[in-house]
Amino acid sequence: MIDQLAVIGVGLIGGSLARALRDAGAVREIVGYGRGVANLRQAAELGVIDRVETSPARAVRSADMVVLALPVGSMADILKEIAPHLGTQTVVTDVGSVKGSIVAAARAALASRFGQFVPGHPIAGTEKSGVSASDSGLFRNRRVVLTPLAETDAGAVERVETMWRTVGAKTVIMSVDHHDEILAATSHLPHLLAYCLVDMLARMDDSRVIFDFAAGGFRDFTRIAASDPVMWRDICLGNRTAILAALGQYRQDIDALMAAVERGDGGWLQELFTRAKRERDALNGTSR
Amino acid sequence: MIDQLAVIGVGLIGGSLARALRDAGAVREIVGYGRGVANLRQAAELGVIDRVETSPARAVRSADMVVLALPVGSMADILKEIAPHLGTQTVVTDVGSVKGSIVAAARAALASRFGQFVPGHPIAGTEKSGVSASDSGLFRNRRVVLTPLAETDAGAVERVETMWRTVGAKTVIMSVDHHDEILAATSHLPHLLAYCLVDMLARMDDSRVIFDFAAGGFRDFTRIAASDPVMWRDICLGNRTAILAALGQYRQDIDALMAAVERGDGGWLQELFTRAKRERDALNGTSR
Repeated sequence: MIDQLAVIGVGLIGGSLARALRDAGAVREIVGYGRGVANLRQAAELGVIDRVETSPARAVRSADMVVLALPVGSMADILKEIAPHLGTQTVVTDVGSVKGSIVAAARAALASRFGQFVPGHPIAGTEKSGVSASDSGLFRNRRVVLTPLAETDAGAVERVETMWRTVGAKTVIMSVDHHDEILAATSHLPHLLAYCLVDMLARMDDSRVIFDFAAGGFRDFTRIAASDPVMWRDICLGNRTAILAALGQYRQDIDALMAAVERGDGGWLQELFTRAKRERDALNGTSR
Repeated sequence: MIDQLAVIGVGLIGGSLARALRDAGAVREIVGYGRGVANLRQAAELGVIDRVETSPARAVRSADMVVLALPVGSMADILKEIAPHLGTQTVVTDVGSVKGSIVAAARAALASRFGQFVPGHPIAGTEKSGVSASDSGLFRNRRVVLTPLAETDAGAVERVETMWRTVGAKTVIMSVDHHDEILAATSHLPHLLAYCLVDMLARMDDSRVIFDFAAGGFRDFTRIAASDPVMWRDICLGNRTAILAALGQYRQDIDALMAAVERGDGGWLQELFTRAKRERDALNGTSR
């Protein structure tokens, strides 16, 4: 049972977690802080949070669990702001899609309290954002990666694991680097590719006709290009090394594909497509 | 009213068209031919076709409408086979995703009968294939592009337009080159990008873990990588010039993105993502 939960950033993820914990009867009081006043007011009106706090310091000072659910680039400043106001037993965790840069920021900001910070990342979400899109079922059967460091308090990790399991998620422990590499490949790279494709088509002379002819496949492929631009800017900056490695490999693969198309190598193309189809079909057999 | 419809290739598209025309009461008899005996037998069992024919020549010889619904690469051979057996009033159309190479093949194979050929492409489909995936509602409110040439008989175009409108589609007339450029950008490019991404991840050392962490966004993005490999091999070979141009532009865009990530240019990234999100959001307001 969480006595007072502070949600810093009450958007899709923060709002969904608040709703889910309340539905599970696993929290007594939820306070919220965020930069968007309208969104915060809506969160209170919807009953997602009990109380709006006017500063991060006030939001965390009597909380036993603090969840940072902000864009990755806002984490460092918030961590500095809350650091002096954390109780000795308060656990802080985050939901950022990048772990390396957030861990570095937390280490610098929290100093002796760094052991109370449990880096986390729920592998869930949609292209929507804001508390209006929040959903108490968002984390059911989803994975949440935790990347504790050597200094991380084992009890704090356990409390964060319990919180996520309460809302139906499965927790997985992983190293910071492994998390960032996996996410670069499975999430960051496809988002960037989708953004690039939509922008390329939009710049074409007959872009209106082009979008008119976009069928279902195009819509599925580019759905993630409707994701929050600030969130994705921050992810690019926060996971630069792994993202550049993934983009570099992908670019090489595109070069090889272009060479095969150029030389009319049907065998090569069919092999590539067959391998990819086999993998993608196998994915359909697994849970989301 | 079509008296005898010959469907050459009774898969997702050919089967769906047959079902839809029958549901509309717009055809007296449907004969089917295809290379896959099991699929053809299933088409007959499902009542999608009335009769299986054992050769393309037999399938077309008393048909007034012939629909070629095969992979793009099989069109040339089939056109050669059917050419001597077409009646003078028979209309031939196709559903290929590429028009330039099919028009060239039709011109060579049909010679003096080339005016009876109406190149067509319904912008509809899913990643599934085979008659078992066919659906009489597949073309409802979808666009069908027709790319008649100077030689194409106006009456033949009209009969093909009527056929597609009967099953709920909207027909659009366009030049062959414009069709091939638009499709390269909106369909062929995303399919190739999705195939490449899945294959890249499959080749990674920890590919099993990587696919385990693939969330909803990845699944949407890569759904089209489950499409038929032979069909897509043929499209690559058949629309080589436009596909290479699209891939070349996309690669340049990836290079620019990588440079921005490399230099940590948050402003550039946010602008790109904001532009793309605006376009993608606008697409949600339009019909499929």
